[in-house]
Amino acid sequence: MKRILIINGANLNLLGQREENIYGSRHFDEFLSALRQKYPNIDISFVQSNIEGTIVEEIQNGKDYDGIILNAGGYTHTSVVIRDAIAAIKTPVVEVHISNIMAREEFRHTSLLSAVCKGTIFGFGLLSYELALIALTNR
Amino acid sequence: MKRILIINGANLNLLGQREENIYGSRHFDEFLSALRQKYPNIDISFVQSNIEGTIVEEIQNGKDYDGIILNAGGYTHTSVVIRDAIAAIKTPVVEVHISNIMAREEFRHTSLLSAVCKGTIFGFGLLSYELALIALTNR
Amino acid sequence: MKRILIINGANLNLLGQREENIYGSRHFDEFLSALRQKYPNIDISFVQSNIEGTIVEEIQNGKDYDGIILNAGGYTHTSVVIRDAIAAIKTPVVEVHISNIMAREEFRHTSLLSAVCKGTIFGFGLLSYELALIALTNR
Amino acid sequence: MKRILIINGANLNLLGQREENIYGSRHFDEFLSALRQKYPNIDISFVQSNIEGTIVEEIQNGKDYDGIILNAGGYTHTSVVIRDAIAAIKTPVVEVHISNIMAREEFRHTSLLSAVCKGTIFGFGLLSYELALIALTNR
Amino acid sequence: MKRILIINGANLNLLGQREENIYGSRHFDEFLSALRQKYPNIDISFVQSNIEGTIVEEIQNGKDYDGIILNAGGYTHTSVVIRDAIAAIKTPVVEVHISNIMAREEFRHTSLLSAVCKGTIFGFGLLSYELALIALTNR
Amino acid sequence: MKRILIINGANLNLLGQREENIYGSRHFDEFLSALRQKYPNIDISFVQSNIEGTIVEEIQNGKDYDGIILNAGGYTHTSVVIRDAIAAIKTPVVEVHISNIMAREEFRHTSLLSAVCKGTIFGFGLLSYELALIALTNR
Amino acid sequence: MKRILIINGANLNLLGQREENIYGSRHFDEFLSALRQKYPNIDISFVQSNIEGTIVEEIQNGKDYDGIILNAGGYTHTSVVIRDAIAAIKTPVVEVHISNIMAREEFRHTSLLSAVCKGTIFGFGLLSYELALIALTNR
Amino acid sequence: MKRILIINGANLNLLGQREENIYGSRHFDEFLSALRQKYPNIDISFVQSNIEGTIVEEIQNGKDYDGIILNAGGYTHTSVVIRDAIAAIKTPVVEVHISNIMAREEFRHTSLLSAVCKGTIFGFGLLSYELALIALTNR
Amino acid sequence: MKRILIINGANLNLLGQREENIYGSRHFDEFLSALRQKYPNIDISFVQSNIEGTIVEEIQNGKDYDGIILNAGGYTHTSVVIRDAIAAIKTPVVEVHISNIMAREEFRHTSLLSAVCKGTIFGFGLLSYELALIALTNR
Amino acid sequence: MKRILIINGANLNLLGQREENIYGSRHFDEFLSALRQKYPNIDISFVQSNIEGTIVEEIQNGKDYDGIILNAGGYTHTSVVIRDAIAAIKTPVVEVHISNIMAREEFRHTSLLSAVCKGTIFGFGLLSYELALIALTNR
Amino acid sequence: MKRILIINGANLNLLGQREENIYGSRHFDEFLSALRQKYPNIDISFVQSNIEGTIVEEIQNGKDYDGIILNAGGYTHTSVVIRDAIAAIKTPVVEVHISNIMAREEFRHTSLLSAVCKGTIFGFGLLSYELALIALTNR
Amino acid sequence: MKRILIINGANLNLLGQREENIYGSRHFDEFLSALRQKYPNIDISFVQSNIEGTIVEEIQNGKDYDGIILNAGGYTHTSVVIRDAIAAIKTPVVEVHISNIMAREEFRHTSLLSAVCKGTIFGFGLLSYELALIALTNR
Repeated sequence: MKRILIINGANLNLLGQREENIYGSRHFDEFLSALRQKYPNIDISFVQSNIEGTIVEEIQNGKDYDGIILNAGGYTHTSVVIRDAIAAIKTPVVEVHISNIMAREEFRHTSLLSAVCKGTIFGFGLLSYELALIALTNR
Repeated sequence: MKRILIINGANLNLLGQREENIYGSRHFDEFLSALRQKYPNIDISFVQSNIEGTIVEEIQNGKDYDGIILNAGGYTHTSVVIRDAIAAIKTPVVEVHISNIMAREEFRHTSLLSAVCKGTIFGFGLLSYELALIALTNR
Repeated sequence: MKRILIINGANLNLLGQREENIYGSRHFDEFLSALRQKYPNIDISFVQSNIEGTIVEEIQNGKDYDGIILNAGGYTHTSVVIRDAIAAIKTPVVEVHISNIMAREEFRHTSLLSAVCKGTIFGFGLLSYELALIALTNR
Repeated sequence: MKRILIINGANLNLLGQREENIYGSRHFDEFLSALRQKYPNIDISFVQSNIEGTIVEEIQNGKDYDGIILNAGGYTHTSVVIRDAIAAIKTPVVEVHISNIMAREEFRHTSLLSAVCKGTIFGFGLLSYELALIALTNR
Repeated sequence: MKRILIINGANLNLLGQREENIYGSRHFDEFLSALRQKYPNIDISFVQSNIEGTIVEEIQNGKDYDGIILNAGGYTHTSVVIRDAIAAIKTPVVEVHISNIMAREEFRHTSLLSAVCKGTIFGFGLLSYELALIALTNR
Repeated sequence: MKRILIINGANLNLLGQREENIYGSRHFDEFLSALRQKYPNIDISFVQSNIEGTIVEEIQNGKDYDGIILNAGGYTHTSVVIRDAIAAIKTPVVEVHISNIMAREEFRHTSLLSAVCKGTIFGFGLLSYELALIALTNR
Repeated sequence: MKRILIINGANLNLLGQREENIYGSRHFDEFLSALRQKYPNIDISFVQSNIEGTIVEEIQNGKDYDGIILNAGGYTHTSVVIRDAIAAIKTPVVEVHISNIMAREEFRHTSLLSAVCKGTIFGFGLLSYELALIALTNR
Repeated sequence: MKRILIINGANLNLLGQREENIYGSRHFDEFLSALRQKYPNIDISFVQSNIEGTIVEEIQNGKDYDGIILNAGGYTHTSVVIRDAIAAIKTPVVEVHISNIMAREEFRHTSLLSAVCKGTIFGFGLLSYELALIALTNR
Repeated sequence: MKRILIINGANLNLLGQREENIYGSRHFDEFLSALRQKYPNIDISFVQSNIEGTIVEEIQNGKDYDGIILNAGGYTHTSVVIRDAIAAIKTPVVEVHISNIMAREEFRHTSLLSAVCKGTIFGFGLLSYELALIALTNR
Repeated sequence: MKRILIINGANLNLLGQREENIYGSRHFDEFLSALRQKYPNIDISFVQSNIEGTIVEEIQNGKDYDGIILNAGGYTHTSVVIRDAIAAIKTPVVEVHISNIMAREEFRHTSLLSAVCKGTIFGFGLLSYELALIALTNR
Repeated sequence: MKRILIINGANLNLLGQREENIYGSRHFDEFLSALRQKYPNIDISFVQSNIEGTIVEEIQNGKDYDGIILNAGGYTHTSVVIRDAIAAIKTPVVEVHISNIMAREEFRHTSLLSAVCKGTIFGFGLLSYELALIALTNR
Repeated sequence: MKRILIINGANLNLLGQREENIYGSRHFDEFLSALRQKYPNIDISFVQSNIEGTIVEEIQNGKDYDGIILNAGGYTHTSVVIRDAIAAIKTPVVEVHISNIMAREEFRHTSLLSAVCKGTIFGFGLLSYELALIALTNR
């Protein structure tokens, strides 16, 4: 049984409550339950943090998983330390975003994380997470 | 039955023959057969062209599909006309890349296409196409 | 009797069908008939191509005309070869655009073609073509 | 009877006297008389000023015209306040230039005004004004 | 009775102790007492944190206030996540700075936060906070 | 009794008439009357000019005031001479803007004036002026 | 007898009164008298204006002089129209500055005027004007 | 007997007819005949295309040659797909240009192709091709 | 007896476990013991944190030490707040890096911290710390 | 009697022989003789070197002069070490150029030396040297 | 009999001894002997210098040759004075490089010299010199 | 017994004489004597040159040392040839600077040398050299 860790970064605790036109109206907990039900053979852990350094530590702890799905939120565009944490472990990390970051503000067009991730998926709403799950468990 | 069009751009006719460390050793035809077998309920069409303007036309013709999976190859980073073609139709387009373009040369880090696509998936080898297929038919 | 060649570039075959808020709802054929009727003393030829190299060749063939009206579409912003073709012939070329390209995305603010054209006209819808016609035949 | 206001900016009072290889040898007054004769059904007003703020005020006063033809001269490339004046009124403004500004010095390639004008015409000598007149009265 | 939350970011716990030529010699606690006394009809809450993610959470918690006064300190110039938190809530946020950030080092001239705030006030020492208070309660 | 000079720059004579979604619908005269009534103990002078050099001179004349409130309009982003005038006098100058200039076009994000002003206030509509008044008379 | 026109731009009417550490303590009138006395065989005219467009016109009027000494002040770094005026006349123009503009703020390091002037002299205080006078009358 | 393929890109079909001051007056066919005569022991093939994608395919077909001489014309500066085609094959490619591209417009100073070619030769007129031939057959 | 504080930033808790080709295979604890033994007359304290704001606080607490050795890890390149904390205290801070940051990715070539540190040492592996110790205690 | 040192940098030994349209046809020796004759009360020394480090040493030796006139030639735009040498001595240095460097290639528009010189004079041919002489001995 | 001068710049005295993977293992002397033997009818001179100013002088001395082959080594990317020396003489200069400079570090992609040379050849190892010899003697 | 070579570049012969606030008041000879006395078991050689090419040669000669300590002075920021010389030899080179180059002018923030050195030490005055000595002999 594969073990996957989902890490949500800054402001993603507000999903379903904020800017619904961009992020949709579904709460993440609800989505997570449905995902676990649909994939009973995958052990899906989940953490969320608004603190950059805590995300670094969660990634470091991700060493024992088969894969990490990471939505670093706004840290995606500014965080060298999260990049370093991903590079420091061997577990494959898939970067996901709910919205199409390339269709938004200029400063969201650059990801410091993509280069050290296995791959990147964005623009599909919460489905982005499921696609990442398939990608990590298919390999 | 959903109809999906896969469009491959420049140099992708060489898959399996060129730079295997980057693109893998599998021929696209072989992959396509396997994909069609795995998803018998989806009608998957496929075209490849090395010519930018022909890709533009294939996208224009994609009006009648339920979705387009587009790997524009090197045109991704330079083509305004492919971007314009995507914007001109209503069919959702998913951008895919076999390699992790963000881990390669600087000039591959910019995609002119992402902003007008539904979403983007890269870095998973040929699996990127399958994830795009799921994304387009799940909606 | 003056001979004028109108060359339309990529995606302009979709005029009247795509993004009507930007490009208007009139088909080019219809406009062309009206133009020919209004200017019976000018011999107006017309070609459209989505392929950059074909546009290059059409411009090369324009050697025998009294003037060329060129709407290169998205190639306007990226094509050195179309610029080279314009510079290679003696026929005056007028660059036109239907929309106000300076009021759209940043990457549309630069034209590689203007510097080698006789003049440039944009923002007036299909009327841009007629103004170019007057400019070329007035000289 | 349509009312059109032509506003000429800095150094355009020297037309016909300065750098004839760039701007031609015809005086503007002479051209204006001919234009009025050719278009007797259009009421053409004309002002010239070398002062940025005065041009701003002329544009503000242009509220009561059917259209403004603006050649802001060197202010085209530096003036936010002229841009703001254009944006502040509802009268359509057409930007014109006598020379092909894109074939001259780098700093002339950027217009702060184009984005808020109806359209732009440059490179046709004094004919640029006449084309603008047609554009404004044709609508 | 209006409720206002003041959030101070990194290093602002040192006010009155550090670089007095830039930040002045008054401690924030002392200033806060005076402010509360002067505005007895406003309920002024206050938090300070050096941790970016904690500031994000304080802003999220600010949902129930009538306004937030935010001095993010050095995070002003680098934090996408604080920007995202401001954009995620409906409470108006006023950005303040004690010093004139535009008269200091180049990297302090850019604020990632201003665009999503109601307004910005800087350069008036601790008076900046009081002006923000007036701005938020006047509306 | 303190003497304060308000200087309004280009296009601000149109307040209440232009782009009301950005600048509001109130005329400045009306606002000024209300301000004078509310602050009877402050002697408030007011000038407006669309001409950069005239604004320079008004600032030079501001030597005898206790403070200047300056809304330079579009000159904010381009005028070295207004900056030089501010630096040349000892009277403190407060820069104000009605709209949130950081939430508008890119070219409005840079102020050449801020670095030599006492402080800057923007985004609060006409209230920005009142806050500046408080800031200058509180000192 | 040679005729030389000195044109002083924005804020130079304050010489001797402002920032004496940069511009010195001598009034220009006093300097001008001394200069005329020292060079009795040169007819030296003088104008000052804070208005860009007026400077443009003074340069246009400079057609009948043997040379122009121009200190455009802050307009040096931003004015295309003054550059155009210099290019439009045949009279040689020498650009002068009192201070060493290259040892001051970054935005003062670029002169839009130098390229169209005969030569440039800066950093010598008011002596810069005298050197320019020698340069123009020596030729 | 060595086999060499010469590929000429956009507008090179006009050699001898266009801008003779830059490209010389000799037709390529004439030059090619002379070259074959001078090097009877080398089998020299030749293709020309104005279409980017066709050049890509010609390079792909070059797999069976001992070397390719490529003058991509204006595509040199913009084509990622030609670069990718060169990288995809093992045949050494030598980049040539007739003119000294570094002494022309700024946008011609960058070659996307050089980095993946064996070497580059430019500035020697048609002799550039002969030098490339020597380079490829000498190895 | 001198008191020195060593502060390690993000991901440095993984030393000896991650990317050994870059950071070496020695654990920091082991190195620290050896260092303390070699320098018995220096009181060496040590903290590590992955959280930017916590590092800020550790530096603030460093007020009572004779010197601080700071390896901020990835925060080196992005943190204004750590820079501000260093500037806010009087204790000299020496910046160290294990690897040669100038021989790695572009984004590691810029340090926001160096300008406010006493000095910088990088590229010597863990020896960098010992050199910093000598530098701080030698003074 | 004042002592002035003229230092000529790279390629200035060719004066009168090279590019006469830019540098004139007069040899420097001839000019120097005339200058000494015209200013018998000034002791004018002269050195020329094509070697950057030798120019550095000549400037260091200039400590005992009343002034240095420096035409560093092409090193003007690239030499930090010549800048450092000027900053290291107390003798005032005047930078001169024969041609108008701002009217030539882009890379000649930047001088690394101006900021540390007393002043700069360019564009007057060999007269630039004489003006510098007057400037240095007038003080 | 034609006379050709080969000038080698900085570090090229180490050929055959340094970084053999980039520069090959052959000593230049050895290559030069072979070259002279192969082309007995060409008089080939050779100089090497690590000093920029000495290279300038060697180029100046090259006036009496039929051509110069110049490998300026690292000075290629930084030397305005070598560029000026090339421009100052009439002898055609061919720029050569042993390695493919466009496939190496970013700062090697720019040559200050190419624009004033007859042509450029790089990437062919020592064969680059021979091709340059052919180019110069063929003309 | 280890052999170390210290190479000082441009203007460092003036140490103790120039800008003492930046470089201190100690002469290098004096410091060198003290250093040799303190480290009797290290054979320390020393050379200084103001000439870039001579520094290149000294580095080339450094092949036979156990280490080189290099303070290239102003060449640090501009010299590709010194970089190439360092890369060409196997002896480890340590880059040192007396002042904190990152706290000075912008153009001193970039070192072309760091990437090919073993490590870099700056900001500690002459102690920087001693730390480099320890670093090189410790290895």
